[in-house]
Amino acid sequence: VSREKRHDILFKPIKLGPKTLRNRFWQVPHCNGAGSDRPGMQAAFRGMKAEGGWGAVFTEVCFFTYDSDPTPWVGSQLIDKGDIKNLSLMCDSIHKHGSLAGVELTHGSSFLMNAESRMPGRAPSQIPNEMEGMASARAMTKIEIRQMQRDHVDGALRAREAGFDLLTVFCGLATIPNYFLYPFNNKRTDEYGGSFENRCRFSVELMEMMRETIDDCAIGMRFPIDTLEEPYGYGDQGVRAAEEGAQFIELLDDLVDYWDINIGTLNWGEDAGSSRYFETNHQAEYTRHAKRVSKKPTINVGRFTDPDVMVKAINSGQCDIIGAARPSIADPFLPIKIEEGRYEDIRECIGCNICVSRWEKGGPPIWCTQNPTSGEEYRRGWHPEIYVPTNEPEPPILVVGAGPAGLECAMTLGQRGYEIVHLVDAAEKIGGHLNWVSSLPGFGAWKRVIDWRETQINTKTQVQIQVNSRQSYEDILESGADHVIFATGSHWDRSGMSALLHDYIAGANADLPEVATPEQYVLKGKKMG
Amino acid sequence: VSREKRHDILFKPIKLGPKTLRNRFWQVPHCNGAGSDRPGMQAAFRGMKAEGGWGAVFTEVCFFTYDSDPTPWVGSQLIDKGDIKNLSLMCDSIHKHGSLAGVELTHGSSFLMNAESRMPGRAPSQIPNEMEGMASARAMTKIEIRQMQRDHVDGALRAREAGFDLLTVFCGLATIPNYFLYPFNNKRTDEYGGSFENRCRFSVELMEMMRETIDDCAIGMRFPIDTLEEPYGYGDQGVRAAEEGAQFIELLDDLVDYWDINIGTLNWGEDAGSSRYFETNHQAEYTRHAKRVSKKPTINVGRFTDPDVMVKAINSGQCDIIGAARPSIADPFLPIKIEEGRYEDIRECIGCNICVSRWEKGGPPIWCTQNPTSGEEYRRGWHPEIYVPTNEPEPPILVVGAGPAGLECAMTLGQRGYEIVHLVDAAEKIGGHLNWVSSLPGFGAWKRVIDWRETQINTKTQVQIQVNSRQSYEDILESGADHVIFATGSHWDRSGMSALLHDYIAGANADLPEVATPEQYVLKGKKMG
Ligand SMILES: Cc1cc2nc3c(=O)[nH]c(=O)nc-3n(C[C@H](O)[C@H](O)[C@H](O)COP(=O)(O)O)c2cc1C
Ligand SMILES: Cc1cc2nc3c(=O)[nH]c(=O)nc-3n(C[C@H](O)[C@H](O)[C@H](O)COP(=O)(O)O)c2cc1C
Ligand code: SF4
Ligand code: SF4
Repeated sequence: VSREKRHDILFKPIKLGPKTLRNRFWQVPHCNGAGSDRPGMQAAFRGMKAEGGWGAVFTEVCFFTYDSDPTPWVGSQLIDKGDIKNLSLMCDSIHKHGSLAGVELTHGSSFLMNAESRMPGRAPSQIPNEMEGMASARAMTKIEIRQMQRDHVDGALRAREAGFDLLTVFCGLATIPNYFLYPFNNKRTDEYGGSFENRCRFSVELMEMMRETIDDCAIGMRFPIDTLEEPYGYGDQGVRAAEEGAQFIELLDDLVDYWDINIGTLNWGEDAGSSRYFETNHQAEYTRHAKRVSKKPTINVGRFTDPDVMVKAINSGQCDIIGAARPSIADPFLPIKIEEGRYEDIRECIGCNICVSRWEKGGPPIWCTQNPTSGEEYRRGWHPEIYVPTNEPEPPILVVGAGPAGLECAMTLGQRGYEIVHLVDAAEKIGGHLNWVSSLPGFGAWKRVIDWRETQINTKTQVQIQVNSRQSYEDILESGADHVIFATGSHWDRSGMSALLHDYIAGANADLPEVATPEQYVLKGKKMG
Repeated sequence: VSREKRHDILFKPIKLGPKTLRNRFWQVPHCNGAGSDRPGMQAAFRGMKAEGGWGAVFTEVCFFTYDSDPTPWVGSQLIDKGDIKNLSLMCDSIHKHGSLAGVELTHGSSFLMNAESRMPGRAPSQIPNEMEGMASARAMTKIEIRQMQRDHVDGALRAREAGFDLLTVFCGLATIPNYFLYPFNNKRTDEYGGSFENRCRFSVELMEMMRETIDDCAIGMRFPIDTLEEPYGYGDQGVRAAEEGAQFIELLDDLVDYWDINIGTLNWGEDAGSSRYFETNHQAEYTRHAKRVSKKPTINVGRFTDPDVMVKAINSGQCDIIGAARPSIADPFLPIKIEEGRYEDIRECIGCNICVSRWEKGGPPIWCTQNPTSGEEYRRGWHPEIYVPTNEPEPPILVVGAGPAGLECAMTLGQRGYEIVHLVDAAEKIGGHLNWVSSLPGFGAWKRVIDWRETQINTKTQVQIQVNSRQSYEDILESGADHVIFATGSHWDRSGMSALLHDYIAGANADLPEVATPEQYVLKGKKMG
């Protein structure tokens, strides 16, 4: 195998100020539940991406002052010497593979409770946050604004000391630079509020200060170029791509080495859009405005998993570098697989947003529907591409049920070298419930869970698949298998049991003619009423 | 000073199986955000209570299996050797002061997401939890029930190894023993479900196994004797004090060394009742049923801060030992102050439940309205009773504003030995907004914040208080103070600014006749409309 020539552009190095990115793959900042307090997990998780070919690998949001404390949520931090030491492990594990280590310098302003630090927050204006009821921040005086800029620069200096190459000032979600920029958050009447120029002043001064202080790292900004329509966006209280979004980029272009461009607000469902509602590269109509006005390399995101889509984004002048959060979680080895032309091995993110929902539940360690090794690189030593060979390949193994779990199980056994693995299913094809779920409008991408495993099993293992094969107790006993694994899944409860009442809701039993479970309705075509 | 004779009973030792409690003060299990992963904070926080005279000091919920993982919430755990080592620090710090260290062995069943461990949960019956949408548990087979009992005992053995004297099996909130007991959670049709005897079988077998295995620690249960009426309670799907609640205690009485009795369900607002709705000792009508049927020492809770109420609870045959969570947070030195007859020094919990609300936000490190040192014993070395003496007592200090913050500040300066501290307020009395807030129905206890600080200032410091003294800029410059501290508080926003919209809501401006802030209404008597 070797890659298509048309994909070569993805492997062309590009300069970012004093640094050179070895290819066009950029793992944008995303949380993984490791923060700075689980340095081993953080280093192993990010190092895996560098190993898989991501030329730049970032932290999640990284806080640098005590008054930007996400507790009980988990973000990384660079506040003291211990943090520097902890995150330097991550930098080392990225550098080992020739990639650049990036940090997303973040001050959470009015959004964070500061529950551990007990500090009062800081903001351009004293307005309660729209999503976090227990957080608040007071308006800064001009002296405090200057201090806030210095705090950013001090954070950047600590990042440099930890070994980071790419210093991104975060200007998305709830952060100080965009709080100044958006009329939604900035109600000041001094030279930091009001006109567009005034609302940009904080960022201009900050980036000037950064450049004066640091010249041996690449310095950039992550900036949502469009804050979208109300009600999920800020409407005319934010910025729009063709107007102030592009103008902000133009104004600051000389002060940055790169632009990491996305869209959205604190409500980040349009940025990390699920596949149900958003196609790949759905941000293009907004983000392409950046290159129109900028002379610097720009990064875009958009659930990029297809190299043709990536190449088109670059060749069409939309962006220079392919950014990815979820595609890099689902397949840390995506770049290398494209590089080597192993296209069918790509484990594509299905856009289910389980990673996002989990994050919204307080930020426990990450997990991913497509990549079960995600988050377990350190604790369990799991590798997404390397399967520990078995010493005893002989004993026959029967896996009953070829839904997602059975497929993953049989594939892993096969990859580990077990020679006699039978994967059986009662249905006429493999895939279990994902067959009917992925037939629903908007759920097509979910079928990738089946397809990828089927391909891996067929091309790389000796696993034998048998469908239309319902197993009885006797069948299993007589199968000759030394190990039997059940992955027979579950069904929707038909009983009408209520989670709230712990009792049956009268009239909600799906054996009644007017009630149906999704399975009954979609799969069995139950007619209602 | 010396204590009233009638309080002597509170200092009479009492035997609990193989252990002796040195007095009648028992810090019941409560969370503090330390868990097992912040061993220094845990040890310093609990050690402070032992130093203050609490004869027994407990952990919060302590989990002992990987499938009872509270992430992202924080509880303590005893799963591996590291946990044993970490919590042994807490035991040492408690033993140092002659108190007993207690652990609350807890399995969270269907309530916990197991977000870090990735394990499936276990329960008597497979029913979704009523409060935690992302958690689930499967029904145990009989072999698994036996394993679950062993898991409890293994947890107890690790607790003993860590140095705990008192092993409480937790049978409140969402835990396995009460899941078996309550028809709300137990729908089994085998010998572990159905009749009362069957629903108790798990606990009886478990406690027998515990006794067989461990004879050198005191073993008890924490049991909510009444799960209250619907909708906030379980109605006839739980237990009631006079019926199955008392019967459960009777059935297990021979198997325990003590009973820690409270009330309520996963919805714990009736247990940790706020002062707004619940008097001190409000649980008595339920909890007194325990002693009616038990021969073992019993502990009760009920925001006990008044030694007379405590003595009455014991002498009336309601309980033998005074349990406390919040009163021990607000004043870790409550027992010693009673012992020494220093009644006016008692810093009474005001029942505001800020500690509870914070916990409900994910369990970050504790804080308390009355005791600002709470949770900072380790990190900052703060002590609730010891004030670091200043080396330079001379410079005059002006504290502007005698609300809660100004009072705390002036008191602390005074206690540290500053000789010239002026505390001034524009109003005609000290206390700031707490004066009018505490005049509202149900808020009377909040006045303790003022009263305690006023007493301390008057009896222990040279701070001079001056009311009716509004300070101008010139006044302050001319005051001669070397240091000026502003604690002038804040007011309700009158502008109608919306946290959601970040804009003014038309018609919500409190300068209009038909709109009022609480201050305008209560304090200024604004007539509406
Ligand atoms: C689990 C998760 C956590 C994220 N955390 C961050 C973050 O800490 N900072 C940030 O700027 N963006 C964060 N994002 C947004 C991503 O950087 C990215 O903009 C978005 O997911 C769209 O890219 P994608 O389609 O490649 O996933 C996060 C995304 C995910 C999926
Ligand atoms: C912040 C806080 C955390 C608590 N955590 C626990 C816990 O982990 N386990 C438990 O059994 N009870 C817990 N409780 C309940 C207390 O043990 C106690 O039953 C309740 O607060 C009533 O006692 P009090 O009036 O003395 O506060 C907690 C209470 C508070 C205030
Ligand atoms: S497959 Fe689902 S969980 Fe995994 S990265 Fe994609 S959206 Fe997230
Ligand atoms: S004073 Fe308030 S915060 Fe402190 S223990 Fe009492 S209820 Fe909790």
